[in-house]
Amino acid sequence: MKLTELDTPSLLIDRDKLIRNIARAKASCAKLGVHWRPHLKTHKCLEIARLQIEDPTGPATVSTLKEAEFFASNGITDLIYAVGIAPHKLPRVDRINKSGADCKIILDSVEAADAVSRYARTAGTSFRVLIEIDCDGHRSGLKPGSPEILEVARHLKDGAALVGVLTHAGGSYSAHGDAELKAAAENEVTAITRVADDLRAAGFPIEIVSVGSTPTLCAAEKAPGVTEYRSGVGTIFDLFMHGVGVCEIGDIAESVLVSVIGRQQEKGWLITDGGWLAMSRDRGTASQAVDWGYGAVCDINGNLIPELWVASANQEHGIIARRDGKPISESDFPLDTRLRILPNHACPTAAAFDRYHIVDHGEATEVWHRINNWE
Amino acid sequence: MKLTELDTPSLLIDRDKLIRNIARAKASCAKLGVHWRPHLKTHKCLEIARLQIEDPTGPATVSTLKEAEFFASNGITDLIYAVGIAPHKLPRVDRINKSGADCKIILDSVEAADAVSRYARTAGTSFRVLIEIDCDGHRSGLKPGSPEILEVARHLKDGAALVGVLTHAGGSYSAHGDAELKAAAENEVTAITRVADDLRAAGFPIEIVSVGSTPTLCAAEKAPGVTEYRSGVGTIFDLFMHGVGVCEIGDIAESVLVSVIGRQQEKGWLITDGGWLAMSRDRGTASQAVDWGYGAVCDINGNLIPELWVASANQEHGIIARRDGKPISESDFPLDTRLRILPNHACPTAAAFDRYHIVDHGEATEVWHRINNWE
Repeated sequence: MKLTELDTPSLLIDRDKLIRNIARAKASCAKLGVHWRPHLKTHKCLEIARLQIEDPTGPATVSTLKEAEFFASNGITDLIYAVGIAPHKLPRVDRINKSGADCKIILDSVEAADAVSRYARTAGTSFRVLIEIDCDGHRSGLKPGSPEILEVARHLKDGAALVGVLTHAGGSYSAHGDAELKAAAENEVTAITRVADDLRAAGFPIEIVSVGSTPTLCAAEKAPGVTEYRSGVGTIFDLFMHGVGVCEIGDIAESVLVSVIGRQQEKGWLITDGGWLAMSRDRGTASQAVDWGYGAVCDINGNLIPELWVASANQEHGIIARRDGKPISESDFPLDTRLRILPNHACPTAAAFDRYHIVDHGEATEVWHRINNWE
Repeated sequence: MKLTELDTPSLLIDRDKLIRNIARAKASCAKLGVHWRPHLKTHKCLEIARLQIEDPTGPATVSTLKEAEFFASNGITDLIYAVGIAPHKLPRVDRINKSGADCKIILDSVEAADAVSRYARTAGTSFRVLIEIDCDGHRSGLKPGSPEILEVARHLKDGAALVGVLTHAGGSYSAHGDAELKAAAENEVTAITRVADDLRAAGFPIEIVSVGSTPTLCAAEKAPGVTEYRSGVGTIFDLFMHGVGVCEIGDIAESVLVSVIGRQQEKGWLITDGGWLAMSRDRGTASQAVDWGYGAVCDINGNLIPELWVASANQEHGIIARRDGKPISESDFPLDTRLRILPNHACPTAAAFDRYHIVDHGEATEVWHRINNWE
């Protein structure tokens, strides 16, 4: 199908870029001597997951239990649910595991370890658990060297089995330049391997030593002691990752196909049907060296039109302006002209759509579905 | 069902607040002597639409043709698709109308009028069309007094029938205080009635004179010559509308139920499972007098905890901090504590969910579905 036959807004994936990005992540992991446990939260799509994983069963990372249910029911059973477990979710995890999956959970407190152990004992079931480590003060997890880590390990019992440690260098998203990226990558490795060593020294077998973020996977040169990298957005890439310095504009595999629906004559803007519902409200590049507004504007063939940007957006209206403030030539963009908008952030942009249209050599050849929401 | 029995994150609607907000909009329209054509884009939900509309057939406003298809197939047939029509969408509109609906379209250029007329002639079909007017330089539409308005009217032929004029006072979202709100409401009415008068004087019958935004409906004192108001978010309300000054915190009918999943001990934060995917990336209140971060924090009963806010968010993690920077008392918020987060903007927050849980007297009594996406 020609792209002009798709209704707009529609979500596109360039297959060649997707394949290239996946190959790059696999090569990085091969160089580091680690498994790749791709984070499926960016695309939530079975076909893409299958292109990423080593084996039909995984490994893979999920961000919701709905993803876990979906991927497990499609044979991708070696999972980590990489969001600190809320005890009320344990019955749902248990059902996923009883269906044949190995959905591991993470936690970072004695309170959580006790809750998981208690539920496992009461329900006569078991969970495989990783302790979450905070390598850069970004979010959740225990600090390397914190005495609470050993305490948490000791409180995991009665079916709650400690199998590993996990960290996420979220701080790497604000790194500037190669030196800072490399430092974030090294710090992530150093932090997690120290914890793994401490736990092993205390007699706990640590099978999984899991790190990862797209910037640190791109920057890492060695990762001794690490068993796997998780990375999500690097399979797709986006303008924010371009701003971080880990991809080129030409690597961004996701775009939103929009149509010109009108003009604001006085201001010389184009109006499209790609508003913030289609692009998301993510304005991550506003804090970077180049602010891309609500997205970078490409022609239907995916070629960047550098003088334009999505300057503003309403729910179902995108406002495209010239960066220099001059009016856009009307005759260049008649009504119904299709444009492709590259997103600030691939994850929230895709979340507004239930499917991807896969683009090969300029044509939409397949439809791949996403598994959105939580219930 | 108790709210603690729901998995999180989940989207809640307080039925009493919803009913009250709907009654308020209806009373405003009754006072003004106009129809209410509620914009269904906020909730995209049949049950809520049925509480809003005057008659089983409408009137109502939609923002996507998927909404139009869904609501029309459920009997709500008097529709305006209030986004400038892209010519490639005309076959889809035509199918909706042939299924028994009266889905009106809007446009603002001779180019679009010609395209619609041409399609109607070629396909042997008809469309009912409103001309979009720009009352405040906000987005799309022709300026009142612009000679192009009459030209567009003259170019509508061969089945493309001019039935009305429409404007949206988008500028009212940045109004400060009652005087500015009232001025925006008056300006909207003055602008559209001038255009209606001009067209009637030129011999065009103008049946529908449509205005509306939540702030202007709340502020309008009279609307002579206007036949209907469209408003969307005012059925739900949100923190942004509270910042505009048109609702109280206690009027906000939508919240996201989240669970405490951990803590950042060093910084004294709570971590929840309500991240930006659940809350949306909308940070509209950042430009208002009170910045609510990613949302206002309430207890499970919906009572505001004013010292807290959602200070930051990742995809599946919400970070709750005290506004004064002091650490949050751990003992007050054990793991799995449920909190309700009020959104900056009801529309994008709801768009991440496929259903609402309706809350009556503190219990989840019904599930109402949403019609998301475009295809």
